[in-house]
Amino acid sequence: MYVVKSPLSDADLKTVSEALQGALVDLVDLALVAKQIHWNVVGPRFRSVHLQLDELVGSARTHSDTVAERASALGVSPDGRAATVAVGSGIDVTPEGWVDDTAAVQTIVDALGAVIGRMRERIAASGEPDPVSQDIFIQITADLEKQHWMFQAGNG
Amino acid sequence: MYVVKSPLSDADLKTVSEALQGALVDLVDLALVAKQIHWNVVGPRFRSVHLQLDELVGSARTHSDTVAERASALGVSPDGRAATVAVGSGIDVTPEGWVDDTAAVQTIVDALGAVIGRMRERIAASGEPDPVSQDIFIQITADLEKQHWMFQAGNG
Amino acid sequence: MYVVKSPLSDADLKTVSEALQGALVDLVDLALVAKQIHWNVVGPRFRSVHLQLDELVGSARTHSDTVAERASALGVSPDGRAATVAVGSGIDVTPEGWVDDTAAVQTIVDALGAVIGRMRERIAASGEPDPVSQDIFIQITADLEKQHWMFQAGNG
Amino acid sequence: MYVVKSPLSDADLKTVSEALQGALVDLVDLALVAKQIHWNVVGPRFRSVHLQLDELVGSARTHSDTVAERASALGVSPDGRAATVAVGSGIDVTPEGWVDDTAAVQTIVDALGAVIGRMRERIAASGEPDPVSQDIFIQITADLEKQHWMFQAGNG
Amino acid sequence: MYVVKSPLSDADLKTVSEALQGALVDLVDLALVAKQIHWNVVGPRFRSVHLQLDELVGSARTHSDTVAERASALGVSPDGRAATVAVGSGIDVTPEGWVDDTAAVQTIVDALGAVIGRMRERIAASGEPDPVSQDIFIQITADLEKQHWMFQAGNG
Amino acid sequence: MYVVKSPLSDADLKTVSEALQGALVDLVDLALVAKQIHWNVVGPRFRSVHLQLDELVGSARTHSDTVAERASALGVSPDGRAATVAVGSGIDVTPEGWVDDTAAVQTIVDALGAVIGRMRERIAASGEPDPVSQDIFIQITADLEKQHWMFQAGNG
Amino acid sequence: MYVVKSPLSDADLKTVSEALQGALVDLVDLALVAKQIHWNVVGPRFRSVHLQLDELVGSARTHSDTVAERASALGVSPDGRAATVAVGSGIDVTPEGWVDDTAAVQTIVDALGAVIGRMRERIAASGEPDPVSQDIFIQITADLEKQHWMFQAGNG
Amino acid sequence: MYVVKSPLSDADLKTVSEALQGALVDLVDLALVAKQIHWNVVGPRFRSVHLQLDELVGSARTHSDTVAERASALGVSPDGRAATVAVGSGIDVTPEGWVDDTAAVQTIVDALGAVIGRMRERIAASGEPDPVSQDIFIQITADLEKQHWMFQAGNG
Amino acid sequence: MYVVKSPLSDADLKTVSEALQGALVDLVDLALVAKQIHWNVVGPRFRSVHLQLDELVGSARTHSDTVAERASALGVSPDGRAATVAVGSGIDVTPEGWVDDTAAVQTIVDALGAVIGRMRERIAASGEPDPVSQDIFIQITADLEKQHWMFQAGNG
Amino acid sequence: MYVVKSPLSDADLKTVSEALQGALVDLVDLALVAKQIHWNVVGPRFRSVHLQLDELVGSARTHSDTVAERASALGVSPDGRAATVAVGSGIDVTPEGWVDDTAAVQTIVDALGAVIGRMRERIAASGEPDPVSQDIFIQITADLEKQHWMFQAGNG
Amino acid sequence: MYVVKSPLSDADLKTVSEALQGALVDLVDLALVAKQIHWNVVGPRFRSVHLQLDELVGSARTHSDTVAERASALGVSPDGRAATVAVGSGIDVTPEGWVDDTAAVQTIVDALGAVIGRMRERIAASGEPDPVSQDIFIQITADLEKQHWMFQAGNG
Amino acid sequence: MYVVKSPLSDADLKTVSEALQGALVDLVDLALVAKQIHWNVVGPRFRSVHLQLDELVGSARTHSDTVAERASALGVSPDGRAATVAVGSGIDVTPEGWVDDTAAVQTIVDALGAVIGRMRERIAASGEPDPVSQDIFIQITADLEKQHWMFQAGNG
Repeated sequence: MYVVKSPLSDADLKTVSEALQGALVDLVDLALVAKQIHWNVVGPRFRSVHLQLDELVGSARTHSDTVAERASALGVSPDGRAATVAVGSGIDVTPEGWVDDTAAVQTIVDALGAVIGRMRERIAASGEPDPVSQDIFIQITADLEKQHWMFQAGNG
Repeated sequence: MYVVKSPLSDADLKTVSEALQGALVDLVDLALVAKQIHWNVVGPRFRSVHLQLDELVGSARTHSDTVAERASALGVSPDGRAATVAVGSGIDVTPEGWVDDTAAVQTIVDALGAVIGRMRERIAASGEPDPVSQDIFIQITADLEKQHWMFQAGNG
Repeated sequence: MYVVKSPLSDADLKTVSEALQGALVDLVDLALVAKQIHWNVVGPRFRSVHLQLDELVGSARTHSDTVAERASALGVSPDGRAATVAVGSGIDVTPEGWVDDTAAVQTIVDALGAVIGRMRERIAASGEPDPVSQDIFIQITADLEKQHWMFQAGNG
Repeated sequence: MYVVKSPLSDADLKTVSEALQGALVDLVDLALVAKQIHWNVVGPRFRSVHLQLDELVGSARTHSDTVAERASALGVSPDGRAATVAVGSGIDVTPEGWVDDTAAVQTIVDALGAVIGRMRERIAASGEPDPVSQDIFIQITADLEKQHWMFQAGNG
Repeated sequence: MYVVKSPLSDADLKTVSEALQGALVDLVDLALVAKQIHWNVVGPRFRSVHLQLDELVGSARTHSDTVAERASALGVSPDGRAATVAVGSGIDVTPEGWVDDTAAVQTIVDALGAVIGRMRERIAASGEPDPVSQDIFIQITADLEKQHWMFQAGNG
Repeated sequence: MYVVKSPLSDADLKTVSEALQGALVDLVDLALVAKQIHWNVVGPRFRSVHLQLDELVGSARTHSDTVAERASALGVSPDGRAATVAVGSGIDVTPEGWVDDTAAVQTIVDALGAVIGRMRERIAASGEPDPVSQDIFIQITADLEKQHWMFQAGNG
Repeated sequence: MYVVKSPLSDADLKTVSEALQGALVDLVDLALVAKQIHWNVVGPRFRSVHLQLDELVGSARTHSDTVAERASALGVSPDGRAATVAVGSGIDVTPEGWVDDTAAVQTIVDALGAVIGRMRERIAASGEPDPVSQDIFIQITADLEKQHWMFQAGNG
Repeated sequence: MYVVKSPLSDADLKTVSEALQGALVDLVDLALVAKQIHWNVVGPRFRSVHLQLDELVGSARTHSDTVAERASALGVSPDGRAATVAVGSGIDVTPEGWVDDTAAVQTIVDALGAVIGRMRERIAASGEPDPVSQDIFIQITADLEKQHWMFQAGNG
Repeated sequence: MYVVKSPLSDADLKTVSEALQGALVDLVDLALVAKQIHWNVVGPRFRSVHLQLDELVGSARTHSDTVAERASALGVSPDGRAATVAVGSGIDVTPEGWVDDTAAVQTIVDALGAVIGRMRERIAASGEPDPVSQDIFIQITADLEKQHWMFQAGNG
Repeated sequence: MYVVKSPLSDADLKTVSEALQGALVDLVDLALVAKQIHWNVVGPRFRSVHLQLDELVGSARTHSDTVAERASALGVSPDGRAATVAVGSGIDVTPEGWVDDTAAVQTIVDALGAVIGRMRERIAASGEPDPVSQDIFIQITADLEKQHWMFQAGNG
Repeated sequence: MYVVKSPLSDADLKTVSEALQGALVDLVDLALVAKQIHWNVVGPRFRSVHLQLDELVGSARTHSDTVAERASALGVSPDGRAATVAVGSGIDVTPEGWVDDTAAVQTIVDALGAVIGRMRERIAASGEPDPVSQDIFIQITADLEKQHWMFQAGNG
Repeated sequence: MYVVKSPLSDADLKTVSEALQGALVDLVDLALVAKQIHWNVVGPRFRSVHLQLDELVGSARTHSDTVAERASALGVSPDGRAATVAVGSGIDVTPEGWVDDTAAVQTIVDALGAVIGRMRERIAASGEPDPVSQDIFIQITADLEKQHWMFQAGNG
């Protein structure tokens, strides 16, 4: 039976692993939502939004890998399966079908807003039990808030 | 209302778009499953399987993008959302938690086998209505069958 | 006198070489038209369309080289001279002067639509006499149809 | 005391060094103005203008380095300090705060127009005393006029 | 109606824009002619000439883009359409069909000679009205004359 | 009217945005000062200091972009205009003219010392209201203190 | 005992695996023959032919790897050993010793002609039982026929 | 006499510099131990472990450079000499001679465990006196804990 | 008749050219054997051995080119044809069909051992007549012995 | 007999070809002198001067190639042989043996000064007969004067 | 028990393995000493020496890897542990603390001198028993002597 | 006075330094001769020989740098000045003016033959006094003899 001895106490580990698992689900879904819009957006800003979304997909994929491997490093099995993501994500369900560019950007602004709100709670919760995980949440949040601004400015 | 005039007849378009949508769901799930195992595998072949799975993730992501954008090119909105993937994938549900390396490889061999079987049906179905889409299915299948062999050989 | 012994029968060679020569003329003209719009487009989407067109120019040039060298490989001299292109292209004449971005995109959508229609005929005609040339037409068509979607989506 | 023996006569050197110092101040300010708009632009063309401005920043920084080092090569100390730029620039003061994309582009079109006008005077003035410096002004002007067109076309 | 305020007087602009439009047509045709020979050359120097021509194609394409965008920067719409090139080029019509390597090189030497002669007239005409455009003609001519030598030396 | 809903309270936002704006001004000036010395330094260490300063310029430009875009991400318009920098920088005015290498290095040591002192205050002030911004200040300070050592060691 | 369950019926597998094994032997030998000539060619076209042959070697090696791994992917052990190649290749035996450039090129033209003829048979035979393998043969043939032309043109 | 004025109080500086010096010694030894095993490992996982160790060597070398230069930046001379490392390292002495792969991995797991334990103490100790140094410890620990997991998983 | 005047005496040339021809045959066969195993290996170390063998293939191909061109440089025609390799190689015949990983590695260890033994004889024989060729044998042997260790360690 | 028809009159050609041949000799010698000092410099600035000289060598070699090929492009045979350089260079003879860094820099400053003086004469002489060659002299002079400043500043 | 059958006799192996183990210890220590000085050097040549030392560190690390893996290739376990290096190195103990640049360079000149002296003995000792190892010593010595010169010239 | 303590006895040093100085002169001249022909060659093989010569120039320049720095490393001042090269080179004087391709190649074959003959004497002379320098001569000779073959084969 594979057991990793965690450097954290059981209580701290529970707090941090919940934060990491929650972040994993949000970030995997963020990548799927951004790809969905990447394929379905139409309108005069099509190419600009299409390209901008691929940068967001790249970021979200990298961040999801980081938090999943952080969970593994603490001895906690991460869960990023489709069904887990479908029920656990903090992002509202994306409507199916073609979407015009302004609505597309708004969908992403809302998705980012939801994930950022939950990330800031994770920053607050993880600082005491594990400053290493907290630092990871801080750096991911910095990037998400920057991308949040860039999509907001496009609809500004 | 955004409508793309397809170069295909309605009947042909229906056949091909179902094949593309089915392939999209399979390939998005394949990437999620491969990442899940990438994070949860343990055992003496850990590093080898961990790296091999990231190559599969890269392939599956590229292929899913190709088929989604092929659907868009035919004027059919692709759907790669988490819930759609969770219910529509042709891959069996992956068990949660750590997995030893031999079982991990077997999970991927089975997943690839399931996707390849459906891909070969799509090759057969799409040749008449749209040889362009068929050629995409053929090239994806060639890659998946090569990766299938490489995982099988590791458990051979 | 330079003669290449073709692997095709005379009748098959005639069919395939006409398809290749027609494709060459269309693709050279597509590159010239895309450059013309690249230089003359104005309006809020200027930069986006200007860059997108250079990608199309790159594709069209590569494809025209592929079909010309395929003709040479079959022992048939390709003809991509300006006068040949001016009279033989399947693309409507592009108006001179500055063009606003929406009209610019429509011009390209129409040009791509015309070339794609003729390419699909070439796919149908070449499969029996020369599956190697057919595969080249299929791959070029896949790329042109993808670009066709991207310009359409921008005017959607 | 550091003195570089200039290849130019005193009168010629005075003419050329004034032109170089003036160009330095304009170009440093152009980079600062472009960065200011890069951060403050909003609207549907946000991403396109944001990226286009970073290319202008890159050009302006390279050109300012070229003219400053040309002054040093002639034995004349260049002055690119903030206060010198603030009072000596030929560009109108940029308003503070957020700016919508059309106004943002107009600000840059005006700034480029002002710098180009002064650059053309420098080309005229420097040809006789120092064709080497003149050639530098010519090449910088060619680039600025190209960028001027690209911003104008976006507002056209 | 899109109008760019040119930094040149009307008379100067007329002179320069005719030079630029003439250069554009010559250079687009040069690229087409070089590609035509690239595909049709045969003989012991086939590979050497085939590769050398692709370098010339690359140069001619880059130069045509430079002069077209220079016209745009001066507010003059450039025209590089196939029919315009077919009737306005300064290069003699290239014969159709296969061509042996020595004749192929001679065709290119003659084409380059014709373009260079017209370019030198453009250098002479544009210096007074617009030294920026003149500098562009000078640099293009330097490259064309270097390539002219390299083809001549091969037939020397 | 463009308004970004900040994730911070008004009071926290005021504290953090002042810190960011102050850092922006310091870092833009640091880049200008380092370029000024880069052009004006003389003496046996000329080349070494000249190159070292370009690395500092690169760092300072990157850091100024980071803090300006962080302000934008929080919904606060950043101000990096020449006049704002000229009056608000924490760096002493750099003397005009040539400067020998030891004095040049001392100027940079003093400039870095001033900026670092203010950055440490920003780290202290921003931790409570916004740990994301604090982390940015910490990483910039780490880099500035490393460069501070390298210039000090050169005069040691 | 290692057994891969093939997606093909036994009869189809037999047809396809014979085609793949035959192609493997031809392509390994093609690489060896091209290297042999690469080392032994002399004459005025030495450098040109020497370099051209290394491109053919690179292609042949890549293609042989592709067909061998395709066999493995279908569960059939590929055989590319020296003795198997020596007896099974479709290419005539290359004479030993130095070879002048025209004869060298003719040797390669003949070798390519022999392999292409057999490849076209494999395309015809494999389309029904396995369109995935057929597509591989088609793409390899496209490349071999292009190289065939380039060597023929050199002796033209 | 070279003295760097530290931005820290004497007491804080003492705390932080001891933490940095301790980290330096641990990290230099970690690189030496990993290289030792890199050369001496044998067994079926040889290649995998051999390569994985070189990644650890790269990380450990980079981290040791970072902490040594952080000490220099605070005005404290770092000591990474062989004798200092031999007596001060927190890692148990590695046995000499060949080592089988499972034992090799265990040696590295233990070494990483020892260094991580001491790093977490340094994170706790340095936060108050110097958040800049603390951030460096946090980022190094994040990397070491990730590598710790990867070696553990291989023996899991 | 092509004759290269060798810098060596006839006797020396005979000794050295036999050594070079022998090395050529061994190295060509080594590359073929390593590819054969690369395609046919199965078992838990599949991926590791598969990749390691491609590095050996790359080395063997580079070394065979070096010795063949060394022979040419001495005026001796090299012979690397399949039949020559099949009968002259110092490596035992590789069995056909799938091979498990431990046996695969042993096959390569034996092949490398055989080639190394013959290479050391070539080093001894060539030092007197041609130290330039000897140096080539020494460097190839250094690489082969390093690879020999790496495969041995994997079966250790 | 190889004759290139020059675009220049005989008188103009004589003027320009003398300028080009003179520049060639100066620039070849400049590269040799810079290499000589590169190998022989000693003193505290050794590494800095050693590296700076290799940049000068690179520039001088590139410039000499440019002027030699410009002569060829005008139909005039360039002469860059050692004896021609030894007697025709405008640079004073460099003393043999080791040279301390300050004297080394002075040698280069003098050499650059001599070449620049002659280059400015060539700029003046060539403008009328051949503005293309003049532009080449102008650009080379710009680079040499920049390097002249950098060496002077090091001795300043 | 892991035993590699060495191609050398026992006596030869003893001689060569002692030389390799001695070289390993010297080269690991050389890298540690160079890094120690890299961090502790101060004075006007700080940056130049700091950078030059990192090149030496890179060389010494590469060379130590080469000799350690050469020992492994001969079946002899290499020992590069900190304690082994601390007692066995041929380099004098480096003083702790800051060091001015001239003394820093002298420390490295002495260290290189000591290692070179021992390397030349290893060249002499290893030629007879193993010319392959000798060649490695020769190439390392060539590099060390070149670096030795460069540091000496800096203090010359 | 700068003196480097050589690791060689005075007699050995004299032998080796004469060999190095002789090689330096030959190799600098070889680069000059190859450039001279590079600019002056004409005929059907112009492009092939022109490019091949630039590879030789690159090799000769690298080799001359190696031997000059080897002399410096032994404490002997190298002399690569134009006059020294003009009188000391072992290569016959190259005729001035245009040269047809066959004669051009013969000139290079003769030049390489002359240098190789002298290099083999240097290999013989330097082995006893300094195997490190000998190894450098051996590796340079290997490269020169390979290039010698390639030019001979072109005239074969």
